Amino acid sequence: MEDTHKNITSFIGYNKDHKISACEYSSAQNFKELEPLMANPIPETSPYPKALEKTEHQQAEVPSTFQRAKAVIFRMVSYLSGDMEVFGEWMKRQFFLLQLLDWVLRGAAQVVFVNSPLSGMIIFGGLILQNQWWAVNGFVGTLFATISALILRQSREAIAAGLYGYNGILVGLLMAVFSDKGDWYWWLLLPNIVMSMACPIVSSALASINSRWDLPVFTLPFNILVCLHMVATGHYNHHFPQVLIQPRSSLPNITWSEVDTAKLFRAVPVGIGQVYGCDNPWTGGIFIAALFISSPITCLHAIIGSTIGMVSGLALASPFENIYFGLWGYNCVLACIAIGGMFYVLTWQSHLLAIACAFFCAYLSSAITNVMSTFGLPACTWPFCLSALTFLLITTETKNIHKLPLAKVTYPEKNLTYFWKMSKAEKAGKLQKHKQNIQQAEREEEVLTETDKKKWINQHLNNNETVINIVTFQPEEDEKPEPENGRN
Amino acid sequence: MEDTHKNITSFIGYNKDHKISACEYSSAQNFKELEPLMANPIPETSPYPKALEKTEHQQAEVPSTFQRAKAVIFRMVSYLSGDMEVFGEWMKRQFFLLQLLDWVLRGAAQVVFVNSPLSGMIIFGGLILQNQWWAVNGFVGTLFATISALILRQSREAIAAGLYGYNGILVGLLMAVFSDKGDWYWWLLLPNIVMSMACPIVSSALASINSRWDLPVFTLPFNILVCLHMVATGHYNHHFPQVLIQPRSSLPNITWSEVDTAKLFRAVPVGIGQVYGCDNPWTGGIFIAALFISSPITCLHAIIGSTIGMVSGLALASPFENIYFGLWGYNCVLACIAIGGMFYVLTWQSHLLAIACAFFCAYLSSAITNVMSTFGLPACTWPFCLSALTFLLITTETKNIHKLPLAKVTYPEKNLTYFWKMSKAEKAGKLQKHKQNIQQAEREEEVLTETDKKKWINQHLNNNETVINIVTFQPEEDEKPEPENGRN
Amino acid sequence: MEDTHKNITSFIGYNKDHKISACEYSSAQNFKELEPLMANPIPETSPYPKALEKTEHQQAEVPSTFQRAKAVIFRMVSYLSGDMEVFGEWMKRQFFLLQLLDWVLRGAAQVVFVNSPLSGMIIFGGLILQNQWWAVNGFVGTLFATISALILRQSREAIAAGLYGYNGILVGLLMAVFSDKGDWYWWLLLPNIVMSMACPIVSSALASINSRWDLPVFTLPFNILVCLHMVATGHYNHHFPQVLIQPRSSLPNITWSEVDTAKLFRAVPVGIGQVYGCDNPWTGGIFIAALFISSPITCLHAIIGSTIGMVSGLALASPFENIYFGLWGYNCVLACIAIGGMFYVLTWQSHLLAIACAFFCAYLSSAITNVMSTFGLPACTWPFCLSALTFLLITTETKNIHKLPLAKVTYPEKNLTYFWKMSKAEKAGKLQKHKQNIQQAEREEEVLTETDKKKWINQHLNNNETVINIVTFQPEEDEKPEPENGRN
Repeated sequence: MEDTHKNITSFIGYNKDHKISACEYSSAQNFKELEPLMANPIPETSPYPKALEKTEHQQAEVPSTFQRAKAVIFRMVSYLSGDMEVFGEWMKRQFFLLQLLDWVLRGAAQVVFVNSPLSGMIIFGGLILQNQWWAVNGFVGTLFATISALILRQSREAIAAGLYGYNGILVGLLMAVFSDKGDWYWWLLLPNIVMSMACPIVSSALASINSRWDLPVFTLPFNILVCLHMVATGHYNHHFPQVLIQPRSSLPNITWSEVDTAKLFRAVPVGIGQVYGCDNPWTGGIFIAALFISSPITCLHAIIGSTIGMVSGLALASPFENIYFGLWGYNCVLACIAIGGMFYVLTWQSHLLAIACAFFCAYLSSAITNVMSTFGLPACTWPFCLSALTFLLITTETKNIHKLPLAKVTYPEKNLTYFWKMSKAEKAGKLQKHKQNIQQAEREEEVLTETDKKKWINQHLNNNETVINIVTFQPEEDEKPEPENGRN
Repeated sequence: MEDTHKNITSFIGYNKDHKISACEYSSAQNFKELEPLMANPIPETSPYPKALEKTEHQQAEVPSTFQRAKAVIFRMVSYLSGDMEVFGEWMKRQFFLLQLLDWVLRGAAQVVFVNSPLSGMIIFGGLILQNQWWAVNGFVGTLFATISALILRQSREAIAAGLYGYNGILVGLLMAVFSDKGDWYWWLLLPNIVMSMACPIVSSALASINSRWDLPVFTLPFNILVCLHMVATGHYNHHFPQVLIQPRSSLPNITWSEVDTAKLFRAVPVGIGQVYGCDNPWTGGIFIAALFISSPITCLHAIIGSTIGMVSGLALASPFENIYFGLWGYNCVLACIAIGGMFYVLTWQSHLLAIACAFFCAYLSSAITNVMSTFGLPACTWPFCLSALTFLLITTETKNIHKLPLAKVTYPEKNLTYFWKMSKAEKAGKLQKHKQNIQQAEREEEVLTETDKKKWINQHLNNNETVINIVTFQPEEDEKPEPENGRN
Repeated sequence: MEDTHKNITSFIGYNKDHKISACEYSSAQNFKELEPLMANPIPETSPYPKALEKTEHQQAEVPSTFQRAKAVIFRMVSYLSGDMEVFGEWMKRQFFLLQLLDWVLRGAAQVVFVNSPLSGMIIFGGLILQNQWWAVNGFVGTLFATISALILRQSREAIAAGLYGYNGILVGLLMAVFSDKGDWYWWLLLPNIVMSMACPIVSSALASINSRWDLPVFTLPFNILVCLHMVATGHYNHHFPQVLIQPRSSLPNITWSEVDTAKLFRAVPVGIGQVYGCDNPWTGGIFIAALFISSPITCLHAIIGSTIGMVSGLALASPFENIYFGLWGYNCVLACIAIGGMFYVLTWQSHLLAIACAFFCAYLSSAITNVMSTFGLPACTWPFCLSALTFLLITTETKNIHKLPLAKVTYPEKNLTYFWKMSKAEKAGKLQKHKQNIQQAEREEEVLTETDKKKWINQHLNNNETVINIVTFQPEEDEKPEPENGRN
């Protein structure tokens, strides 16, 4: 019985320990702040899944030069990819402003579910390429959202993961994008700061609601606050006028011969760029790179999502300019990433679900664009939020669609390894339990034949919230009954 | 004490056993797949309530010819009315396509809360009378919604009850009704199939939310998906244009002398027909018949609801055409059925509540029609969903408004018998408990005088969520009791 | 250990006992239905916080004339301020119609979170000053909402606190304000009665949802029902036409030289008056007085809120007329009261939060006004409801923002004293427990050496889902009890 307990404990402990990321498994004792330790060879081949599996006899093997080189490369990759946990750990010992920068960069990348300062830096690079004024606004937004979260004493861990920054960067960027005053209108920073400081408030409130269903808040705070700002001021405001958005009352004739195939293909990276409100295909390409270095699965689903959005635009007879401009893509990108490996464990079934979700999202995107335009508003990422939440709420009897508990979500590759470990542990646990049951049965039989005097009556009647316990002891001699909890 | 346990178990078992419907109580052993067994007479008179009460001495009586005839008729009625559970049981042994047809037919009838393939068939008859193209779309919608639920591995029991089909039939029908391309535009089947396959996804997601308050999803998935499709494409779409709906900016003058009383009366069946989007009064009449054979109480409330809608239309100065066209009726029909006996047990109080709900629904109907027309959308059944959900969320201190747990909802007549059984069992249970307490007290006294060593104190205080356990041990020898947590 | 139990019980009892308000602490035995007992002097100075602290040696002191006078004044104040619980207790013994009047008056005051018939009376005075027809409608609304709650068998305690009336008065008032038929159009009372009778239904339904997050329903039922009525009838209705509200398509030029400072200052009381739809500054002044006599903290936050609204209007370049008319103020008033001391305990942090909430509310107010005008609707108090709910849903790690459980909310001053008592009791409890642990350890040692009989008392007090287990062992010999779970 105690063995089981130890097993469970060690298993739980395992996950916590290995939050310190895949790479540090071999050298926890001689790890010296990001210094690449070439001396310690690791005979692993495939980077992600096997990375966590500790081969216990590896020290016994004599590593070849090839193995060493591979180990070095793998270590380099593991430092820079994933959620860069080693770097994060190192950051914890640095001074505050540097930490804040780390959080801001992670916040910038968290828009596409990536928890990595490197990706964040690359993304800011892409933004500067697109428009420097927008980049400034994005940075200010992320910074003040993070500061506001600190003031409001939100969970330090969540702040460090950039989970309070990503709404801020979107608020900052999109307020600049939709401002009708043009670039470098410095007064805009004022509502920008106010709105991004409101982000953690709305995030925290929404999390209180969504946590009941173990759902994330996604970019809902951004959607709410940007729509709030735009509709509160409007196109005719004297201080902060917004771009004029009007409902379409007719559609231009579509002639298929006019389709520009090159532009159509370019719509895929542009769609990814539009997640941050950018229409420059190079910026989109940079974002793809930022995704790839952190998580190839995420990157793949982003591209699939953007393609699905483009195809849906054609199927629903949208004007070509909208498709070229990436307006059909960005919501599908986010929805496809969220379902495909991020919040569900990646299996073939959940991959198909991600594709279905992207199509649903494209449809929803068209609908929401039309509805919001009545109020002079853009669709923002409402379609993504609503479709992803819908698909995360599905319950099904198949075990191949496995929703991760929110606290365990990291990035697709790590989610997969976590899931595999869990399945393995479950099987092992069952075997262990089976053995124990037999042992216990034997022990109990002995006790019975020996003293013939003990009785156990445990009745658990559990309707709704009623618990009736009737426990009767009539022991006359030594006995060590151990009724632990109702689940034995 | 063990007696109590048996009693409780048998009581719980009772309800489960009798899920096998009213009709099969007399002949569980010699039941031969729907073959009407004339030989076994049942001396029952009133069809519904008494049906479940097993008269234990009935075999002893010699049945007269009259009794036999009545029994035969009653058996016939019980086979065809209610939720046709015997037929459903028989279906389970048939091959897949036949089962699927059963589920589709039940799905068609579930729109009006009827779980009966016979009613479903009659309803399809009414639809064909109205418009064959619509009927085709409705069938395709139900079929693909059911198939999609199977693919997504939803609860087989719910699928077999048609609970995944009813949104599909509405999606199929209403997409055909609101299409601007006219009948037999075959391309429409494409979005029809896509949207009806999305039904189980939205249903499942909404059920995850609503189940927290033990509420059904009603036709919310249909409302969401049809509005989604209509607003995503719109009137000016090249592939799938929608009927043009515009907000009214003025109302025609109403002169009471112009009222056509005949049309006003005809609005009652038309209102019931409009549940399926049909304006043919004969179709409405057929639907009334379909309701009646399954559940007279449901049928009555449908008629009451439609009448209330018509009256409300007059009271709120609606243009007469809308009233004649049944637009004021269909939401009230559904709301009145839902509250009057379906989700609440039918009492005078809940009957009055159903009438209040129908009036509230009519008001809401007018409001939602105006709001939705801004986006070029019809009201669909939003008013019904919102008003019924509101009325189901009410909490009150009176015991005469008894909300059934969602898992126990079948149809008004069966709900009533279930409720009566429950009340009776509760009373019986109290008596039984009282007797046992006396017996136990006597036994305990003996024990006390004999050994003077045992005590039992079981206190079960169960307010809301409070459980107080007081367990007293008076062992004489070595013992290591380990009270771990409240569930032992 | 038994002492602890007593202590806890008495502590729980304490709060209940002292619900009978601050004033009755000295003369529970010789209290004679509001008769001011001059003979019994109370040497208290500060009215609110110290009021509850019973000085046990006060009878021993000989009171001076000054002390007597002060005592008399304090008693008078305590009778008329706060929630007038003594008066409420006295009312319980009066005949029904008088009670109903008390409930109606409390309902009128509950709009601004004041549970006092005196404030209610003053508020009705202000309404009569503004417009007699509106006052009549407000009275009818409150009356029928209360009656409807009685019919629906809602909690008698909540009805007596006016919690079912405040939506009624707003429904009545605002339906009269927005009616396009002018004053004294008696037919309006018909929809007024219907809508106010629907208030408890919507309240009860919303409470079922909001109670999951321990949130109040605020004025949501009023918002829903008035919007429902206005959009269901609209401007062009023949029976009940509404004032025409249209979306603004442009803004007048704002020249700061045109600002009328006097009107700007007057906007503060007008903003408070607009809570009840009144634009008369004198009426607003009367409402301020009504607030002050019940709770100065509430009054202060009302003024702060109205000022913030006015400032926000200027910041967002609103037309000056809207600001003068108090349209920017009333939502901020309510939001500022709700967060500042009412649902959060008043601390510096929650005070700042209230100010932030008022600014957020002003922004939201502008946004919602623009969105609602698309449907010809006013903003009602949607901005207040949404912003206050958002700020009440925030979770934070700081202990200085303490949300009161909904059942414990009374008025800011009493909330504070309750909070102080709780903190004190917690500290005292800890000390007490520590002492007892020592004592018990000693006793147990004695017991062990003396009689070899042990006692176990396990108390689990667990809010939310309370499980109290009391397990008593009286074994005569060696025993090793092991209380496992962490809550012992």
